[in-house]
Amino acid sequence: MERTHIANIVPGSRVKISGFVENLRNKRTMAFIVIRDITGKIQVTVVKEEHPDLVPDIDRMTLDSVVTIEGTAVANDYVKLGGIEIIPDSIRIESVADALPIKDDSAIDSRLDYRWIDLRSEKNTLIFKLQTEMTASFREFLLERGFLEFHSPKIIGAASESGADVFKLSYFDGVAYLAQSPQFYKQMAMASGFERVFECAPVFRAEKSYTRKHATEFTGFDLEFSYIDSFRDVMKLEEEMLTYMIGRVAEKFGDDIVRLYGEEYRVVVPTKPFPVMTVAQIYDEIEKRYGYTVPESEKGDLTTDAEHLTYRLAKELYDSEFLFVTDFAADRRPFYHMHDENGVPQGFDLIWRGTEITSGSQREHRYEQLCENAAAKGLGEDVKFYTEFFRYGCPPHGGFGLGVDRLTMLFLGISIKEAEFLFRGPDRLTP
Amino acid sequence: MERTHIANIVPGSRVKISGFVENLRNKRTMAFIVIRDITGKIQVTVVKEEHPDLVPDIDRMTLDSVVTIEGTAVANDYVKLGGIEIIPDSIRIESVADALPIKDDSAIDSRLDYRWIDLRSEKNTLIFKLQTEMTASFREFLLERGFLEFHSPKIIGAASESGADVFKLSYFDGVAYLAQSPQFYKQMAMASGFERVFECAPVFRAEKSYTRKHATEFTGFDLEFSYIDSFRDVMKLEEEMLTYMIGRVAEKFGDDIVRLYGEEYRVVVPTKPFPVMTVAQIYDEIEKRYGYTVPESEKGDLTTDAEHLTYRLAKELYDSEFLFVTDFAADRRPFYHMHDENGVPQGFDLIWRGTEITSGSQREHRYEQLCENAAAKGLGEDVKFYTEFFRYGCPPHGGFGLGVDRLTMLFLGISIKEAEFLFRGPDRLTP
Repeated sequence: MERTHIANIVPGSRVKISGFVENLRNKRTMAFIVIRDITGKIQVTVVKEEHPDLVPDIDRMTLDSVVTIEGTAVANDYVKLGGIEIIPDSIRIESVADALPIKDDSAIDSRLDYRWIDLRSEKNTLIFKLQTEMTASFREFLLERGFLEFHSPKIIGAASESGADVFKLSYFDGVAYLAQSPQFYKQMAMASGFERVFECAPVFRAEKSYTRKHATEFTGFDLEFSYIDSFRDVMKLEEEMLTYMIGRVAEKFGDDIVRLYGEEYRVVVPTKPFPVMTVAQIYDEIEKRYGYTVPESEKGDLTTDAEHLTYRLAKELYDSEFLFVTDFAADRRPFYHMHDENGVPQGFDLIWRGTEITSGSQREHRYEQLCENAAAKGLGEDVKFYTEFFRYGCPPHGGFGLGVDRLTMLFLGISIKEAEFLFRGPDRLTP
Repeated sequence: MERTHIANIVPGSRVKISGFVENLRNKRTMAFIVIRDITGKIQVTVVKEEHPDLVPDIDRMTLDSVVTIEGTAVANDYVKLGGIEIIPDSIRIESVADALPIKDDSAIDSRLDYRWIDLRSEKNTLIFKLQTEMTASFREFLLERGFLEFHSPKIIGAASESGADVFKLSYFDGVAYLAQSPQFYKQMAMASGFERVFECAPVFRAEKSYTRKHATEFTGFDLEFSYIDSFRDVMKLEEEMLTYMIGRVAEKFGDDIVRLYGEEYRVVVPTKPFPVMTVAQIYDEIEKRYGYTVPESEKGDLTTDAEHLTYRLAKELYDSEFLFVTDFAADRRPFYHMHDENGVPQGFDLIWRGTEITSGSQREHRYEQLCENAAAKGLGEDVKFYTEFFRYGCPPHGGFGLGVDRLTMLFLGISIKEAEFLFRGPDRLTP
């Protein structure tokens, strides 16, 4: 007999269900077992006198044991769970669970130690249903627009952009490093004439940070595309891609998110275009409105506090959760961003709910100009392997990257420790 | 004006095209420029007398420079490339290329040194169009069947299955390792009740192998699913998924593959079910048919030569490029495979065109039995972090893994050095 998912059970039908024991009341004459699978929960009711053969297995059952049960689905208004119960005629125990070492309200570190148990709740499973929908929407959006998926190497020969924050590994008789981003390689794909590429893959940062948004390994979603006219084309693609993705998430999980994470995290499908402000405009407004000031020397980039304040600002000014920020100071941006004739970097950050989720830009694709920019930052030799990509012809191009885990955090108001399947931090390498 | 891809150009229309200079004949009165973008090639014809303003840019142009050209598409039967040429009225040089350091017939190591140039040919670009279609088909197939995508950590605290062949890295004040496979974590997701998961991500192998199919980093496509009745369910899903994928590739790129790689690599959409033989049956047949013998002590697993011979065998016996192999000796399979009552591992290999592409199995999900199996291989303490996943309830489950690069190799008859975007081997860490 084929298994039926709990959400699909129809009263009056014979069913086979499989799942974890969510709840168990084993009385003298009756047993009530709640079974949970990935779609829902249902009560199984046993009148022991009618099924003495089932009693030994019920007595062996523990919370979170895995069982397969065949029986008849019956409508019963007294049953709280959806008004249906299963009257079983067979029970098979697939796996008996030891007493669980954590509870729903255990400390986060214990929950991470036993992450596979922590992930069993409906609330936590939703995190990964949402993440699946997010990446599937991104890919679908991009594949329809002619993007190729590529896989760039994570083991690299030279510590790229900067030597800091890079993990070093033994590589046979030498050393190698773990890639901090596919930035250089997605640009290489442009020099190869691939025109449009994306990658969804792990990135590694050897940062000893203990904030709620830092991890030493996370999943990056990166893309790059050719023949743009300016970085505004990159912003346009990003707002379309995010709007599409959020629309899909809202449709599929909007109600679940409110039910399990609260009204505060209701999914708001953005309206396009997203508002755009320069860094200077933002500092003007948040000084005027909220009395927030920083020294002139800090005004080339947004401080973390200023970043957070943009949530309120974008809401007040534009009723938007998103805000594009442009016109950063050149000394606060990477050397590979293109500059306009006044030296202004042709790039942007995108802030969602007061947290930066993207940096993007048009890249400098002209070999001589790029070498000059690198030299100006004192990076000439360090990035020579990269500047070579631009010596033999390269289209104008731009792109951006998004953190899959960071977007997940912001959707649900959780920390990165919960947004990752298995968090990795300076003090966390297990399980 | 919007850019038109070359493949979409219609005679009689005004177009803007962008791409690389594929060919250039700059004569005294005329210039013929062939432009290549990701969709095709087209000739641009300039009568210099009519457009003296274009001459300086044409004189600056070199092979593989990137240009944007606006003009009118004109039907012309004398033009070999599709009978269309562009009569331009503007030319913009986006990027001037230096003289190219490699040619189509350069040695593989030079081509890898300048991989971004090597990838520009139609033949090499097809590799990644095919790979994109492959992974997109897999994901689409699995998402329709309720699989969740997950991202397991690549930095791990303990050298898993075996200490050999694992890259070691400095992790702040300690050490860590790079994951050789998501095996343990995809099973962990089963213990979490995720029921069905897949992952497409890099895997790392510190093997000093120099064959045409080994790399130190490659892209793995892994999946695992719960509530199976036997490993035959895993085989069934795999044959359906591969058949779906190959059908899509055949439809989209079948003609291109034959045109660029030859008749030998014509895509053959398999018919289901794939044939199944035991290891013993294969040795019987290849001894009888091809006189190939190995000592009795080798007969628990297929030798590399035996594996290759199965291509001929599966063709002769079943007219199939695929062959499932079952009934390996227990001492040649990992401890986590389930055994039947006779100790036979409940798993399989899948061979395509004489090369193994998958190992799969039903896993041992019962905690006590799993610990016994690990102990029997002398692995008790080493895998304790993993056996813990099964102590608190776990559904029966199974799965398999595929190498994206290896499948690409077999589709096109190329080596792994060409099938990867950027190959990584013991002597190759750049670019």
